[in-house]
Amino acid sequence: MALCLEHFMNTRKQQPLPQTPTAADYLIASRQCELMNLQYFLQMGKLVQSISALVHGLQRERGASNVFLGSGGEKFSREREAMVADSERLEDLFSQALSEVHSELTAHPVSSHLLNHIATALYGIESLKEIRVQVKGLSLSAAEATSAYSHLIHNLITVVFEAADTVVDPSIAGLLVAMVHLMNGKEYCGQERAVGSAGFSSGGFDSALSQRMMHLIEAQERCFDVFVSFADTESKDLWHKLRAHDREQEIERFRGLGCSVGRYKALDPELADTWFALMTERIDELKKVEDAVEGQFHARCVERFAEARGSLADQETLIASLDAQGQSSQPLLVLCETGGESGSQAGDAWASEGVGQQFGRSIFDLVQEQTHRLQQMNDELQSAKEALEDRKTQEKAVLLLMESRGIDNDQAHRVLRKLAMDQGRKLPEVARALVSMADVLK
Amino acid sequence: MALCLEHFMNTRKQQPLPQTPTAADYLIASRQCELMNLQYFLQMGKLVQSISALVHGLQRERGASNVFLGSGGEKFSREREAMVADSERLEDLFSQALSEVHSELTAHPVSSHLLNHIATALYGIESLKEIRVQVKGLSLSAAEATSAYSHLIHNLITVVFEAADTVVDPSIAGLLVAMVHLMNGKEYCGQERAVGSAGFSSGGFDSALSQRMMHLIEAQERCFDVFVSFADTESKDLWHKLRAHDREQEIERFRGLGCSVGRYKALDPELADTWFALMTERIDELKKVEDAVEGQFHARCVERFAEARGSLADQETLIASLDAQGQSSQPLLVLCETGGESGSQAGDAWASEGVGQQFGRSIFDLVQEQTHRLQQMNDELQSAKEALEDRKTQEKAVLLLMESRGIDNDQAHRVLRKLAMDQGRKLPEVARALVSMADVLK
Repeated sequence: MALCLEHFMNTRKQQPLPQTPTAADYLIASRQCELMNLQYFLQMGKLVQSISALVHGLQRERGASNVFLGSGGEKFSREREAMVADSERLEDLFSQALSEVHSELTAHPVSSHLLNHIATALYGIESLKEIRVQVKGLSLSAAEATSAYSHLIHNLITVVFEAADTVVDPSIAGLLVAMVHLMNGKEYCGQERAVGSAGFSSGGFDSALSQRMMHLIEAQERCFDVFVSFADTESKDLWHKLRAHDREQEIERFRGLGCSVGRYKALDPELADTWFALMTERIDELKKVEDAVEGQFHARCVERFAEARGSLADQETLIASLDAQGQSSQPLLVLCETGGESGSQAGDAWASEGVGQQFGRSIFDLVQEQTHRLQQMNDELQSAKEALEDRKTQEKAVLLLMESRGIDNDQAHRVLRKLAMDQGRKLPEVARALVSMADVLK
Repeated sequence: MALCLEHFMNTRKQQPLPQTPTAADYLIASRQCELMNLQYFLQMGKLVQSISALVHGLQRERGASNVFLGSGGEKFSREREAMVADSERLEDLFSQALSEVHSELTAHPVSSHLLNHIATALYGIESLKEIRVQVKGLSLSAAEATSAYSHLIHNLITVVFEAADTVVDPSIAGLLVAMVHLMNGKEYCGQERAVGSAGFSSGGFDSALSQRMMHLIEAQERCFDVFVSFADTESKDLWHKLRAHDREQEIERFRGLGCSVGRYKALDPELADTWFALMTERIDELKKVEDAVEGQFHARCVERFAEARGSLADQETLIASLDAQGQSSQPLLVLCETGGESGSQAGDAWASEGVGQQFGRSIFDLVQEQTHRLQQMNDELQSAKEALEDRKTQEKAVLLLMESRGIDNDQAHRVLRKLAMDQGRKLPEVARALVSMADVLK
């Protein structure tokens, strides 16, 4: 594949600037542009993979840091060090992936948002070194450490969300939407592990902890729903296997203990270790599903790239043969000038039925075909775009609620969910209504 | 300005690939990306200008061709030839503008739609040569010729619409939205001239012609409304002067004659010449407003480009001074390693308050600032994006109605307007509802 890409890059660079641009030139340029988009996502795939791996490493490190801090430095000291080393290796891989895609990323005049999200994520990675020092020195609470890790993970996932926004091919966009929602769901699962650990190890859940746990369960289910509606068959199968595993029932039982704060009773702190192990297993299994989606994503990119390249080559051949038929690159211009000089009716009649028109009609067909193809792709993209848009709108609605009511993230999510329930509407719908009303009320 | 751009291009090319990318690198990249977007629109401005000029030339040529064909070749024979020569000159200027922006246009991995619209427009220009031969030979009806010219003009304006979709800067986006709606309104005005000419010269308007005229008047008013809500003060002043001119009342009187088909009576065919002259004057005045918007657009691009370049330079200086303060490009990493070796609590305490943190906090501030800026720009872009989206949705709704009911463009517009009136809702709203329902019913 590397060879293919290189060949294509060369082709692109050798493309001469047309002196008098023709419809055929721009038809080819439009198709080349699609090819560039696919190539871009072939490269972005590597970045997404490195983000997925880094997020997983950070989730493990966050878990270990939590236990380490919770036990006053007694537990997981060595494990945490190993995980830090592992995360640092993954950070380097992320850096490397970024460097490889750097020129593609920065060539794009509309990617200022994406680049700024990368800056935010990199800032988080840079600050992490400081956090680790503080965790090691036990000078940070478990909650503070969790919040720092969670922020960074959120920012890394946002990079993938932002990247997904520029896909042109609907099947690739769908897989990326599946991927990013799976990542998001897995992250909620990681946060649930932390909240559960805090509750179980302290012998019980207070109302705030219990509500937070419910929020994380609901948020993760919603992400997985979107994942299922966009994922490929193979990844969905893996997902259903995960769901059918006995572990899930065990987790449900633990969740029941954590969420039923009404009938509060002291819990055996020993449960904390079992909970942590169960959830860690679940998160590792989720990572395998993530790897499957990623494999599919890469395969689909390679496949679509090959198709698009083949189709571009066909078009070029077709256009060249039309040119040869016309005996000139601009038959219509020639005909027009002839008509202008002689003004003969016979010549005009020939012109309207002859080679020139034939040429015109065929290029017209090709351009029309491309218009329909792009329109159809746009229509098919719609649902993927909406899934991405829904997430943005929800985040915006939550921020609005946090600011206007002075409440925290969880509470804002709860207000939103309650609104949706009370009005019998879907969550994205309520979020949209809220955001649009806020614009009016501002 | 050319020098500035060249300087910037050089700066951009010299940008080395960062070995280990930092938040600062990507913050700068994000700002450079905004600059690239502004530069892109500085260049696109020339293309838009050439399209505006070409559209005006084609509108004149269409008008003359109509009179020429309507008079069986008696009238406007020489004028038409002169206009054809003028349009051909403008076609060359459009080609030239395209060539100049070619590398920018094709570097963009998400511009396949734009490139395909350019292909469609170029195809129309290529076919025009044939149309002109047929007009000259009187082998085309006035209606057929009008339709060919109108198609091409529509496709040229669509190029500007599509280009407007990728603006990042809200003030520039607003001017481009004003520009493209003015172009669109002016084109409806041109079509109204043709319809009126047909009616007046044949001595009366039948119901179809009269309804078409009403449709064109309403469509043009809606475009001008959008223009007014996005235009700069100077262009709006010019527009209000145009509206206050005596000519407008004269035109209203003629419109009254054309639209009051109920009290049908034979009209003096002499009116056709007056109507044509009045509307031509109006169209020429509209072109002057268009030129004013264009001038503003260019000035705004230059201004925003200079601002963005200054602000980028400031950021670079600031970051460099932060680096110098930190005595190292990666102070946090150094601190972390020191911490790892000594593990001293004192060292950690210093690290959390010292130079490293100071550095971190400042870069953090800059990144946050950029996040807020981009978010705010996005919010401000919203109304411009909606205006563009409304047009697309309306076109889609009209196409849907045409296909499902087997009616023509005018009738589809009427159905849409009637729906809006009956339901007391705005046109874009009804169009959106229709498009979304069609997706469900498909």
